[in-house]
Amino acid sequence: MKELVLLKIGGKTVEDENHFQRILERFANLAGPKILIHGGGAQADALSKEMGIPVQMKDGRRITDLDTLRVVTMLYAGWINKQIVGKLQHLGCNAFGISGADGKSILSVKRPVKEVDYGYVGDVVEVNHKLINDLLQLDLTPVFCPITLDASGQLLNTNADTIATTLGLKLTPYFKIKLWYCMEIPGVYTDPGDPSSVISVLDTSLYSTFKAQKIISGGMLPKLENAFHALNGGITEIAIGNIDSLFNNTSTKVVK
Amino acid sequence: MKELVLLKIGGKTVEDENHFQRILERFANLAGPKILIHGGGAQADALSKEMGIPVQMKDGRRITDLDTLRVVTMLYAGWINKQIVGKLQHLGCNAFGISGADGKSILSVKRPVKEVDYGYVGDVVEVNHKLINDLLQLDLTPVFCPITLDASGQLLNTNADTIATTLGLKLTPYFKIKLWYCMEIPGVYTDPGDPSSVISVLDTSLYSTFKAQKIISGGMLPKLENAFHALNGGITEIAIGNIDSLFNNTSTKVVK
Repeated sequence: MKELVLLKIGGKTVEDENHFQRILERFANLAGPKILIHGGGAQADALSKEMGIPVQMKDGRRITDLDTLRVVTMLYAGWINKQIVGKLQHLGCNAFGISGADGKSILSVKRPVKEVDYGYVGDVVEVNHKLINDLLQLDLTPVFCPITLDASGQLLNTNADTIATTLGLKLTPYFKIKLWYCMEIPGVYTDPGDPSSVISVLDTSLYSTFKAQKIISGGMLPKLENAFHALNGGITEIAIGNIDSLFNNTSTKVVK
Repeated sequence: MKELVLLKIGGKTVEDENHFQRILERFANLAGPKILIHGGGAQADALSKEMGIPVQMKDGRRITDLDTLRVVTMLYAGWINKQIVGKLQHLGCNAFGISGADGKSILSVKRPVKEVDYGYVGDVVEVNHKLINDLLQLDLTPVFCPITLDASGQLLNTNADTIATTLGLKLTPYFKIKLWYCMEIPGVYTDPGDPSSVISVLDTSLYSTFKAQKIISGGMLPKLENAFHALNGGITEIAIGNIDSLFNNTSTKVVK
C-alpha cells in the first residue's frame, strides 16, 4: 500500500516567514502523494482587529459570529490558502486549494449549543474520501483550509487538527497514512521551553503518567488525544514537531 | 460532442440577493456539464472602503496594489466563491470552487506597465484544460473566481469576462461550448434603459453599424469584442442577458 503524508501546519508556523518558507520547500520536495492542512488563527486575530471585529475565544476555540465567519473564510479559504498554493506551485508541487465546501469534501454539523454557543463552528461528520482520492490520482496535492459545510449549505469554521485527523482516518482504505503535526517547537517537551527535553517516543502509558504529573498540559492535551484516537483508527505513524525535527526524525513520535 | 455551458455572472448580479438566488437555482438545475465564473467588483469596492483601502479604477479596470490584491483574493477566492459553492451544493449541484492558482488551472502574466501600472493584474496566457476536463469527468461543477497565478507563484487579479472566454476557447476540443454572460439587464439594448429594446440577434455587421452610430457603447464594447473573438475561436453559442432572458431564450444572441 502506498504511503500518504498529511502535514498539518499551525497558524503560528505561517506567521514566521522563514519557518513557513522552509515548510513549503520541504513539503514540495516530498515524493509521493501528500496533503497539506493549514490553519490561520493568528492571522484571523489580526484581520479581526484591523476590521474592528471583537475576537472571542473559549477554551482555545474561536467563537464565530457571522462577521467572524466572513473573516476566517476570507483568510483561510482566500488569502492564506491561495498564497500557499501559489508558493507551492512555484516550488514545483502541483498544489490544489480546497475547502470542505468544495465537492462537499468535508461535511460538518453546526456545534450544538450547550454551555457555550460557538456560533458558526462545525464538527466534522463526513469526509468525501472518494473525491480526495480521485484528486490524488490526478497527481494533485490538496491544500485544505479549515472551512467546512453543513447539509444546509452553511459554511462553518472548523478545527484544523480535527480535519487532519479525520482526513487521515478516512483515507486509510487507500493509503498507509503518516500524519505530521508541524508547530513552532521541535516536539512535545517534558520541560516547557527546553528544546533538549523533546520526548522521542510517546506511548499511551507514558502519556498517562506525564498527564497525571502535569508534565504535559494545556493545548497539547487535545492534540495528543486526537493523535491516540487516530492511531487506534488505523493511522500508521504520527509525529509532532517543527519542520526540521519532522524531517530529521527528531520529532516526537506518538505510538499506541 | 457533449454540450458544456459556461455561465459568467457579474459582480452586480451577486449584489441583488433575489436575482442571485434565481441564478444559482437555474444554474443548479441545468443538466449536463457546466462551469460558473464569477466576479465580485462591487463587493471589492465595499470591502476596500470598509478597510480604508483606496479604490483606483482606470478604464473600468481595478488598479491592484498589494493591499487590493489581498482584498480581492480574500473576497473572490474566499467569501464569495465559498458562499456560491455552499449554496449550489445545497441546491444539489456538485460545485467545486477553483482559482487559477489551483492546479495552475489558469496561468497569467503580470500586465506590462505602459501608460498605466495596473499593479497585480494578470493577463491569461494558458489554461490547464486537461485538469478542467478531468474535474468535469469527476462530475464536479467548477466555480471559478477571477484570481490567477503567474510563473513565479504570484497571485494576480484577472478580468472574469476574459477568464470565461478563454476557458470556453480552450475547452472546444472536448465540448460544444455555450457561453452565457449574465448581467442585471435582459440583453444588449438599442435604447439604454428600455428593456423592450433588447437586440435578439447581433452579428458582426449589425454590431459595426450600432458601434458607428454609438447605439452600443461603453462597457458593452469590450464584452462584445470578446464575444466575437470567442465565436471566431470555435465557441458555438454566445448569449448576453439576465438569468430570466438567458433561460427564456429572449437574451441577445451574438453570432458571426
